[in-house]
Parts: sequence; C-alpha cells; structure tokens
Amino acid sequence: LAHALLCSLVRTSGVCASRNGNTPGVTDWQEQDEALVREFELPSFPAAIAFVDRLAELAESENHHPDIDIRYKRVTVRWTTHSEGGITEKDREMAERTSALAAA
Amino acid sequence: LAHALLCSLVRTSGVCASRNGNTPGVTDWQEQDEALVREFELPSFPAAIAFVDRLAELAESENHHPDIDIRYKRVTVRWTTHSEGGITEKDREMAERTSALAAA
Repeated sequence: LAHALLCSLVRTSGVCASRNGNTPGVTDWQEQDEALVREFELPSFPAAIAFVDRLAELAESENHHPDIDIRYKRVTVRWTTHSEGGITEKDREMAERTSALAAA
Repeated sequence: LAHALLCSLVRTSGVCASRNGNTPGVTDWQEQDEALVREFELPSFPAAIAFVDRLAELAESENHHPDIDIRYKRVTVRWTTHSEGGITEKDREMAERTSALAAA
C-alpha cells in the first residue's frame, strides 16, 4: 500500500514503473540509488524466512547476491551490480525471479 | 576489526562495553539508537544464511524478533524491544544467544 501510494505520487517523475508500463516483471520494483528495490510482506515471520531461504538458493546458484533486510515479516530486497556501478539486465531478471519466489 | 577499532576510540564514552567489562556475553555488541547491534562475518554466503536460519528459529521460539540485514556473508543483527522503547534484559540475553549461534 505504501509502495502504491509512493508510486502514485512520483509516477510523473518516472521513478516508478507503471504497472501497465513497458517493463514486464519488474513493475513493482523501484529504482533507488542505482538498485532495484522492493519490499515484500509475507504472512508471518517463518514465511518471511522461508522466502529468504528460497531467494538465497537462487542467489547462490546464480552467483549474484542481493542485499536483504528482514523486519519481522517484511523483507526488503535490493538488486544491483556493484562491478557495473548500477542496475543491469541480470538484476532485472533476478528481480523478476524474486517476485515469483515471493508468490510461491 | 572495525568494531574493535571503533570501541577503542569510544571506550571512554561508555558506548562500547569493554571485553573485560561487566556485561558478560554481550561485550561485542554496540548500543546504537536504543538497540544492541552487532555485525557477524561468516565464512560464506550459505554460512550466513544458515546462521540467519538458526537465529530465526530462536527468535520465533522466544517470540522476539531482531532486525536482520544480510550483505553477502556479513549479517547485522539488531535487538531492541519496541514496546519498551529500548534495550531490555531480554535483548541482552538474546544478543548473548545470537553470539553463540554465530559461533556454532
């Protein structure tokens, strides 16, 4: 809800991709400080940790590791490529796959 | 190392407990913004996630949940009691048990 509100406020600045925009799969992610960022709210703390475990398995298998902040049942994931100094296609792919893992 | 350096710098202010001080078990934790905070560096990313899993199991069993930030193989843990507006004895106990989990 906070995300949707924020996006509705800043949509005209182009910071948020529209849900009907042209970036399929990463439309719920925000670009912040050269990273793709999204907060996920899971049903419970154990569900949040299970999501982190799934995400960690993906990250390790792809050798690309996001920043992860756990706040009870809310998990913020941040994808960027430090060696490239910003967001790459790999980050967009990983963001999309992260969203799928959260819904799993 | 950074922690030890910081503590050596601020020891006189009482922000850091001395390793030889009178707060057994939480001597490597810093008090920051009304919370007990410590960064753990694990040998690898999977080891960091395994530590988070152990910590999450403890947190859920005690119904007391820390903030957890994962940065590759570094994990920052923050214990506070929001309902009390600061650090309680429970937080000190959980910090001590967290340190033991990291060493496990």
